[in-house]
Amino acid sequence: MNPRPHVAVVGATGAVGLEMIATLERRNFPVGQLTLLASARSAGKTLKFRGEEVPVRELTADSFNGVDIALFSAGSGVSKQFAPLAVRAGAVVIDNSSAFRMEDDVPLVVPEINGSDIKWHKGIIANPNCTTAITLMALYPLHAAFFCKRIFAASYQAVSGTGAKAIAELQRQINQVVRGEPVTKEVYPHQIAFNLFPHVDVFLPDGYTKEEMKLQNEGRKIMHHPTFRASITCVRVPVYRAHSVAVCAEFEKPVSVEAALEILKRAPGLDVIDNPAKCEYPTPLMVTNKDNCAVGRIRKDCAFDNGLSFWVSGDQLLKGAALNAVQIAEELLKL
Amino acid sequence: MNPRPHVAVVGATGAVGLEMIATLERRNFPVGQLTLLASARSAGKTLKFRGEEVPVRELTADSFNGVDIALFSAGSGVSKQFAPLAVRAGAVVIDNSSAFRMEDDVPLVVPEINGSDIKWHKGIIANPNCTTAITLMALYPLHAAFFCKRIFAASYQAVSGTGAKAIAELQRQINQVVRGEPVTKEVYPHQIAFNLFPHVDVFLPDGYTKEEMKLQNEGRKIMHHPTFRASITCVRVPVYRAHSVAVCAEFEKPVSVEAALEILKRAPGLDVIDNPAKCEYPTPLMVTNKDNCAVGRIRKDCAFDNGLSFWVSGDQLLKGAALNAVQIAEELLKL
Repeated sequence: MNPRPHVAVVGATGAVGLEMIATLERRNFPVGQLTLLASARSAGKTLKFRGEEVPVRELTADSFNGVDIALFSAGSGVSKQFAPLAVRAGAVVIDNSSAFRMEDDVPLVVPEINGSDIKWHKGIIANPNCTTAITLMALYPLHAAFFCKRIFAASYQAVSGTGAKAIAELQRQINQVVRGEPVTKEVYPHQIAFNLFPHVDVFLPDGYTKEEMKLQNEGRKIMHHPTFRASITCVRVPVYRAHSVAVCAEFEKPVSVEAALEILKRAPGLDVIDNPAKCEYPTPLMVTNKDNCAVGRIRKDCAFDNGLSFWVSGDQLLKGAALNAVQIAEELLKL
Repeated sequence: MNPRPHVAVVGATGAVGLEMIATLERRNFPVGQLTLLASARSAGKTLKFRGEEVPVRELTADSFNGVDIALFSAGSGVSKQFAPLAVRAGAVVIDNSSAFRMEDDVPLVVPEINGSDIKWHKGIIANPNCTTAITLMALYPLHAAFFCKRIFAASYQAVSGTGAKAIAELQRQINQVVRGEPVTKEVYPHQIAFNLFPHVDVFLPDGYTKEEMKLQNEGRKIMHHPTFRASITCVRVPVYRAHSVAVCAEFEKPVSVEAALEILKRAPGLDVIDNPAKCEYPTPLMVTNKDNCAVGRIRKDCAFDNGLSFWVSGDQLLKGAALNAVQIAEELLKL
């Protein structure tokens, strides 16, 4: 790999694309050249990178000549069409969509958990689902120590997970409620201002959503744990940024809060905020714009014989998307 | 019991007290005489009941002469001090606080579940915790059919559960954010506008909150099910009214979604809203000001061998408080 790689960002003007550009700059990623790609609609705009205005170009089949690393975040359809072209042009693709995550020849990577899977990539490396990544940041260190059999969870997911249009929808609806005007809906099927609903991603025949089943399916692959079971209800809440997850986890080996705290305090990319007596536990606002996820409310679960409950929050545009992708790129440079 | 009882509402000017008065009127409870009681601060106000202005009087030791039914909702301290005085004066107390709920000689009642426990009251009947009542409205019919061993849950609790001051706090903070002003905090330890936190009620030494342990403790008593286990994370969310709970429940007998739906459709006080293909499931706004709770997202749980997951929403000022109390009063009249 070129030590000063030519990096392309596909979907550069989206919520995650913008975070990818900002994260490359903030972490001093040694970008040799930056190519920003988006749909024809966004082509012609410019975006700032290291003080310079970089033009946004239209994504085409020829966009990847000379590109070393292509960060994709423009939806599954775009990834399926253009990622193979980028690989053929010689780039390594780090894909934030769900298009390739469960493919056998595509590593699905959270660097703090299974960074070594990057080694066997065949051109595409997948970035996990945001809620999955944030949950595993706290769960995996405990699994490594105690062997997690299963978890029961519920999420509190911010509107920015849906994208810029959903942020605008929450803002608009809040203003409508404040002014006493009728509330209009464009993005979500239900009002999100002062409301919430158990519906993220599309429903499957078994009654779970795709988003919900990603936790078990992607969790198994990332943790190399084929018998891992996970049941979650994913809920959209009127928060702008950062997802939270309430988790009850059952383990094979005996657990204690003291041992769990020791393990979590040493875990990379994770802050322990756990002092209930002082009202200290993670909140979405606390982790907004933060690289690290945060875990708290760690306690012996009262309905498992050998379980722990905890609460984890993380900025889903960072650890759940842009940061994790750039971390994978950093690992690629070390290969 | 006097068929046209003299009813007293203690805490008449609070969020729940106001709902109690409205619920007595809406359900045509045969109130013979209405006495409204509150702290000295509120005494002198008047509140409307059946088109007439009823004066609010200061609660004193002598307030209960001639009162047949006293609905208490003024906090545990007031209940502990004044409920025994009301009983001594000949009233039956229906208490919305947690003061007496776990006392052996006090029935803890959700009429649809254990209404017959009202019979053995010794003067005080307790109204359950709001999140517990709403969860059990959907869980109990399933337990009666399949025997529930345990549940793992997470709640989404509205600010009105804290009271009128918290409603004002959310309104004020929303306006501050919209205007770009600094956000001030008076009621909650963290900003609630566009945020949420896993903290309802006070923390216990084991890391759960009192609110969280009520689900197991009160659930055991209401369902007459001493081995019931329940683990929940209770979370305050920026919603004005109505609580929701995501529940994963394990059963003794074999379950199916079809059988569960049949049972829940017949359950009293409960609406089934469960058509994901049409984005139909309960939301807080949908059940606001509604007597019935609503359940949806009913599915076979993927991490239990014999479990169901579901989502239940309910107006916690009604089924979680005022409605349940008035329903108990209605049952008292039938004794």
